[in-house]
Amino acid sequence: MSTDTRTSETTETASIDLNADLGEGLGSWSMGDDLALLDIVTSANVACGFHAGDPSIMRSVTQAAADRGVAIGAHVAYRDLHGFGRRFIDMEPDALRDEVLYQIGALETFAQRAGTTIAYCKPHGALYNTIAKHPEQAAAVAEALSEFRSGLPVLGLPGSVWLGVAQETGLTPVGEAFADRAYTPDGSLVSRREQGSVLHEAGTIAERCVAMAKGEAIADVQGGELVLDARSICVHGDTPGAVEIARTVREALAGAGVQVEPFARA
Amino acid sequence: MSTDTRTSETTETASIDLNADLGEGLGSWSMGDDLALLDIVTSANVACGFHAGDPSIMRSVTQAAADRGVAIGAHVAYRDLHGFGRRFIDMEPDALRDEVLYQIGALETFAQRAGTTIAYCKPHGALYNTIAKHPEQAAAVAEALSEFRSGLPVLGLPGSVWLGVAQETGLTPVGEAFADRAYTPDGSLVSRREQGSVLHEAGTIAERCVAMAKGEAIADVQGGELVLDARSICVHGDTPGAVEIARTVREALAGAGVQVEPFARA
Amino acid sequence: MSTDTRTSETTETASIDLNADLGEGLGSWSMGDDLALLDIVTSANVACGFHAGDPSIMRSVTQAAADRGVAIGAHVAYRDLHGFGRRFIDMEPDALRDEVLYQIGALETFAQRAGTTIAYCKPHGALYNTIAKHPEQAAAVAEALSEFRSGLPVLGLPGSVWLGVAQETGLTPVGEAFADRAYTPDGSLVSRREQGSVLHEAGTIAERCVAMAKGEAIADVQGGELVLDARSICVHGDTPGAVEIARTVREALAGAGVQVEPFARA
Amino acid sequence: MSTDTRTSETTETASIDLNADLGEGLGSWSMGDDLALLDIVTSANVACGFHAGDPSIMRSVTQAAADRGVAIGAHVAYRDLHGFGRRFIDMEPDALRDEVLYQIGALETFAQRAGTTIAYCKPHGALYNTIAKHPEQAAAVAEALSEFRSGLPVLGLPGSVWLGVAQETGLTPVGEAFADRAYTPDGSLVSRREQGSVLHEAGTIAERCVAMAKGEAIADVQGGELVLDARSICVHGDTPGAVEIARTVREALAGAGVQVEPFARA
Repeated sequence: MSTDTRTSETTETASIDLNADLGEGLGSWSMGDDLALLDIVTSANVACGFHAGDPSIMRSVTQAAADRGVAIGAHVAYRDLHGFGRRFIDMEPDALRDEVLYQIGALETFAQRAGTTIAYCKPHGALYNTIAKHPEQAAAVAEALSEFRSGLPVLGLPGSVWLGVAQETGLTPVGEAFADRAYTPDGSLVSRREQGSVLHEAGTIAERCVAMAKGEAIADVQGGELVLDARSICVHGDTPGAVEIARTVREALAGAGVQVEPFARA
Repeated sequence: MSTDTRTSETTETASIDLNADLGEGLGSWSMGDDLALLDIVTSANVACGFHAGDPSIMRSVTQAAADRGVAIGAHVAYRDLHGFGRRFIDMEPDALRDEVLYQIGALETFAQRAGTTIAYCKPHGALYNTIAKHPEQAAAVAEALSEFRSGLPVLGLPGSVWLGVAQETGLTPVGEAFADRAYTPDGSLVSRREQGSVLHEAGTIAERCVAMAKGEAIADVQGGELVLDARSICVHGDTPGAVEIARTVREALAGAGVQVEPFARA
Repeated sequence: MSTDTRTSETTETASIDLNADLGEGLGSWSMGDDLALLDIVTSANVACGFHAGDPSIMRSVTQAAADRGVAIGAHVAYRDLHGFGRRFIDMEPDALRDEVLYQIGALETFAQRAGTTIAYCKPHGALYNTIAKHPEQAAAVAEALSEFRSGLPVLGLPGSVWLGVAQETGLTPVGEAFADRAYTPDGSLVSRREQGSVLHEAGTIAERCVAMAKGEAIADVQGGELVLDARSICVHGDTPGAVEIARTVREALAGAGVQVEPFARA
Repeated sequence: MSTDTRTSETTETASIDLNADLGEGLGSWSMGDDLALLDIVTSANVACGFHAGDPSIMRSVTQAAADRGVAIGAHVAYRDLHGFGRRFIDMEPDALRDEVLYQIGALETFAQRAGTTIAYCKPHGALYNTIAKHPEQAAAVAEALSEFRSGLPVLGLPGSVWLGVAQETGLTPVGEAFADRAYTPDGSLVSRREQGSVLHEAGTIAERCVAMAKGEAIADVQGGELVLDARSICVHGDTPGAVEIARTVREALAGAGVQVEPFARA
């Protein structure tokens, strides 16, 4: 397992990773079009059964990702099927650490069965948002991931408490951007409760992604220039329209000469 | 990882393994005295969260077992917290296979964290009883365990469909006996619904265990002689009385010069 | 609460009930088009949270059913979100009885909040199929429903163990037919594993439903004549095509002068 | 159902209610000695399956309470078996409202089967602590309980946001005290993280309970005098020692001429 650090300073070709949440069905319930997304993204955040996903889905998604050379990431979450992992739970850090380790261990077995290994971790939903600011829970997640594998690459918000704690714990912090979200001047996401927080026009989204991949500025929500420190861009696939946007992003990156490749490899 | 096959033909010292179910609490609920049992048994069947156990319990039990040189086994089960895994579920084989792989993968991470690895698997409760006779579910469990690790030792009833399927799948079948259960002349367990199915007198139980360890006959429920092909004996610890019986068994084995040691080592 | 028994002998108008499974999403996962179906059927089998459904879905579905005069039925099931209640669980009768009572009690509160009450019960999936033949589990379900309300109408397969046990327990047994399933000459469903077990052509399905509603014979799978003792016909709505078939059935019944109305009213 | 308001101004006999958490086992796991407590307390907070309890336990506890004339309260909680309902979950108010209604509806069926009805509600654990201060979640719980039954008595911390919201919603707020907890001068509980937060000496606890029942002052943690506006006192029973303390409290109240009776009756 080695981390493929983008080295845009020394090469002439910009590169970027595209990641998306996959395997988020459960039993008879489906969510999104995993196979369509796997032909677009280079990193798959695979649900581990706590917010979504079940063992059979984990098996088929890890196999399909491995077959396509898509990097497998552990999309660990709070134990909350009813809330899809979108609700903060005030867990004791030790319990959270152990639940994260449980999830990534379960997923790793499916990755190994598919002939590969987990390449990175991206916490999901409320856990992602919580550890961006909550040092105790961030430390708990980081401890679990370090116990799993020293140096594991982890995705998070650039500048977040989470990525700082991950760095200190010996993990490999990797900033990510969101393809379809508006940003404030300080690089935070505009709250979903506000007008204009989510972009819908495929062309605009694709243009911004090309800029981000090249390390160029995008427009923040107030019209200012913002450069995001992101080696991966998150796209969505939970609706047919979302898959279409993701495909447009991928094609725009190719058209702009940006190499789309995993930020971390098994 | 190597399997430590008992070779009583070529050595003068009889040896036997003692196994017990551990880590069967959940959150605020406890079950049995894990630490007391860990000083008695040589193999720990650790619950993986589907019938009992939670990630923090899995962490502490695997650590405590590793500290004492007790072998760690995956006590995989049907997904059934409310029924403690004691109810048959008519699962599709593929779904069962994937749930078993999920569980053993999760436990393996805790074993590795504790500096060791899973040494064997013992299916729990209704799954144990089902695969003793149900070829499709037996094959599903065997497939999962083979995917996890080729040749993994697995416990089961001597002569069961399960151990046969395990053998064919390339796993290492290991027969076990139950310290406190009565047997029919053909080596089956007397149903719990019948009188005399469970033995309660510590001295009698210990004597039988010594005989089993030496490869000698015990009395079946009709008074006939029965030799069980068992390299491990299962003891219980869910009540203070049960722990005391287990301790008596261990002491009787020592007193009889039987070496008590794991049947499989990490 | 009174049961509206069809009395085709004494009136000139045939009548039939259409029932469908509703409220089978969970949290972020959806299943079928509940609102479309509620404009077609006269009885709604509402999931109670054990195989599908969550409290917020139960609230909105019961409200929408009450608003349209659709009768609310308790779609009780085994506790099995991962298997969608489609897997037999070998439960102790007392535990099953209590789980059924728990579910119907929870749903009743939502029905009362919507200004109505549960009009009937239809066990779901594997529980439905099990109690058609399994006297102990059938008796357990019947006991729970009698404790909930003496005389409660219950749906089941005509001639099943379940409807017999329900009758003996003082419940009101009501036979149902399946709009899109083939039948054997003895009135059993052709197994889904066999060719031709499920009908797909809307016109054929609608014709059969009209015949069933009028008490006339339909063709069994071998071409013979079969009269089903059914006061309700089950239609599906889990795909857009299924909703369209259900609508065709409803329109064909209206065109044939069959009154479509609930078999039981709150 | 009528609420039995203590009217100490107009009568000469002081009266108090003793409440305790019951039915907090799950499947094979037990918690506390329900039957011992039912001979001591006058109100039973019965777990509804979300933090603890299962339908069979709910059945047996409601029956045993009804047999003894102990009032049955709904001990509603966050959906959190792994955390025993002790962890705040940042739920949307509508989802929380519906989960509370689901729980109380399920319990009510068991109460009715036992020939009685739910007399009151006491939110559990983290939900209890959250709604003491969190207006949105407090309003959600109050709305659910009002939907269940207008005017329902509810237990809570004297002076809490919860009891205020309950009052405004048309419920009947009832203050409770904790037998074995230290209080700050403003009537708040001393945090469990601090020294001396929990009292252990049975005689002292009993004396304080007698004082509370008579409307007299107890010593706060700083030695000042504190009068609590409590019509019910919560005792515990999760250990043999706790049951013994509860019994001592009951006997001390009897010895002091205090009538121990439910604050609300079915």
